[in-house]
Amino acid sequence: MFDAALLHRAEQLLALLRRRGLKLATAESCTGGLIAGLLTEIAGSSDVVERGFVVYSNEAKISLLRVPASVIELHGAVSEACARAMAEGALKHSNADIAVSVTGIAGPGGGSPEKPVGLVHLSCASTGGETNHRRFIFVKADRSEVRLRSVAAALDFIESQLGTASRLA
Amino acid sequence: MFDAALLHRAEQLLALLRRRGLKLATAESCTGGLIAGLLTEIAGSSDVVERGFVVYSNEAKISLLRVPASVIELHGAVSEACARAMAEGALKHSNADIAVSVTGIAGPGGGSPEKPVGLVHLSCASTGGETNHRRFIFVKADRSEVRLRSVAAALDFIESQLGTASRLA
Repeated sequence: MFDAALLHRAEQLLALLRRRGLKLATAESCTGGLIAGLLTEIAGSSDVVERGFVVYSNEAKISLLRVPASVIELHGAVSEACARAMAEGALKHSNADIAVSVTGIAGPGGGSPEKPVGLVHLSCASTGGETNHRRFIFVKADRSEVRLRSVAAALDFIESQLGTASRLA
Repeated sequence: MFDAALLHRAEQLLALLRRRGLKLATAESCTGGLIAGLLTEIAGSSDVVERGFVVYSNEAKISLLRVPASVIELHGAVSEACARAMAEGALKHSNADIAVSVTGIAGPGGGSPEKPVGLVHLSCASTGGETNHRRFIFVKADRSEVRLRSVAAALDFIESQLGTASRLA
C-alpha cells in the first residue's frame, strides 16, 4: 500500500520516538488518517502512536481539538492559525508528548488564488516546547500526491521537532 | 496507494451515503486510520466523512469513545464488546449518522490461541438503528493484508447496515 521508502522513514521515526520514550498524536484534515495509517503499518507502533484525530469537518476540529471557531472564521480551516491550534489541541487532548497536524487543499476542487490546490499547513507541538509551523505548496501534484507528500512532510517535521525541543531530548 | 478496486468500492459507498444525506464516523484500532484515509482519498468525501478516531491505545478508546474500562478489562480490546462500544461511542461523540469500528490483531505479534493473529472484530452503529457486529479471522495474511481486508470488510459492513437500518432509509 505505502511504498518502501515511506515505510522505511516511518520505521526510523518510530524507532527514534521509542528510544526517547515519546508518544505521538496526529491531527489530520486533508491527509484524512494516512499519517496514522502509515505509522501503524509498522509492527510494534502501538508503543509510540497514542491516538489520532481525523478532523475532516470544521465541527470535528472545534469539538475534538478545541480549535476556536473564531480561528476558522477569521483565517479559514486551511491556515497557519488552524494548523497550530490543531497540533496544540491534539497534544492537550491526548497522552502524547508530541503532536503533528495537517490541514490543506488536496484538490482537485476547493482552490482559490489565495489558497491554491496543493497548499498545506503543518504544525508540530510538543510538551514543554514551542509549537512550530511549516507551509507548503505542492505543485504538479494530484490529490493522492498532495496527500502523500503531506504525510512525508509530517514525518520530517516530527523528526526536526525532536531535534529542537530540548525538553524532549 | 490504495488499489483501484478498493478505491472504486469507497467511491460507491460515498455516493450511497451522499444520496441518503448521511454522515459517517470511523473508530479504528488495528486499521490505524486507513478506513478514513481510503474514503478521504476520494474527492468530495468531506460531505460524508464527518470525523475519525484512531484509538490505538486503550486510554484513547476510553477517553475519546467512552469505552468502559471494564469492557477492556473483562473482554480485552480485541473483542465484540469493545468493537460495539467503539462504534456506539463514535456515533455518540460525532455528528455522524452511522459509525463503523475495527479492533483486531494485525500481527505479526500479539496473537494467542484464543485470539490469533488475523482476528478482527467490526461493529456498525447507526442513529435509531441496531448496533451490529461481525467477526473475522483473516488467515494466511500478513499485517498489511489483515489491515486491508479489515478496511474492505468495513466498507461492506457500512453498506449492509444501510440496508437493514430502516431509520436511515
